[in-house]
Amino acid sequence: MPGLYLEEFYVGQRFTTEPVVLSESEIIAFAEKYDPQPLHTDKAAAEKSIYGGLIASGFQTIAIAAGQWLRTGQQEGTGLGGPGLRNIRWLAPVRPGDVLHTTVEVADTRVSRSKPDRGIVQFAYTVRNDTEIVATFTAIIFLKRRPDEED
Amino acid sequence: MPGLYLEEFYVGQRFTTEPVVLSESEIIAFAEKYDPQPLHTDKAAAEKSIYGGLIASGFQTIAIAAGQWLRTGQQEGTGLGGPGLRNIRWLAPVRPGDVLHTTVEVADTRVSRSKPDRGIVQFAYTVRNDTEIVATFTAIIFLKRRPDEED
Repeated sequence: MPGLYLEEFYVGQRFTTEPVVLSESEIIAFAEKYDPQPLHTDKAAAEKSIYGGLIASGFQTIAIAAGQWLRTGQQEGTGLGGPGLRNIRWLAPVRPGDVLHTTVEVADTRVSRSKPDRGIVQFAYTVRNDTEIVATFTAIIFLKRRPDEED
Repeated sequence: MPGLYLEEFYVGQRFTTEPVVLSESEIIAFAEKYDPQPLHTDKAAAEKSIYGGLIASGFQTIAIAAGQWLRTGQQEGTGLGGPGLRNIRWLAPVRPGDVLHTTVEVADTRVSRSKPDRGIVQFAYTVRNDTEIVATFTAIIFLKRRPDEED
């Protein structure tokens, strides 16, 4: 399925993504490699912490959200990568078995000043579990312009 | 090894971490789960792209950097988690076999206004391969104060 061109995104447009369950073993496997802290890797130690149990690495939470957005196909074939992310906030813990729901809202769109075949879109992500917002961040993405719009 | 308390970090202090090699199979495994784009998962498709070959997910690059910082032990037992990240910039592609070198510089430290047992440190990360800077970002981390400094 082809994705949307720059001109098909507009500020305020919202997309929902497929929910995804995060398991205890996925939390531990990710953290052993990328975020080796007892809170994410050691169930017994985590139970004695202020969180009362294992919680997911925040890096894993944002990566899951980005993956679910890509799986919508909305930038498939039109996305040209991204220069970065802004304002990542981890607002509540993510625990084993949590179902993560990611929504993506278009916060800004503009044509590139230097490359007339593309534009820059800011996607504002909100990640929730079943009870609250667990993370927010903004991704900056380059997107192809619709060919007949180039000038 | 116990980590450093808030008072032992100072602006301009720099830490180096162990270099780490990122393999093709690690790039693909991460991306299939968290960043499913042909540039990260499909060698043949990536070779036809402007990058001329597979490149790593930017999410993987920053997670590796954070993991290498944790493995220095500098915040072991004193770190109290973090509320977020700022200004993630992906500046150059990371390719299979790249050796990633992460340095972390203290950009700010202050005592928490609401919780006198802790402070807030901003760590500015720079990730390089053997030729250039590939990513930069800032992590905000809560750290315990040295017990005799609490008031």
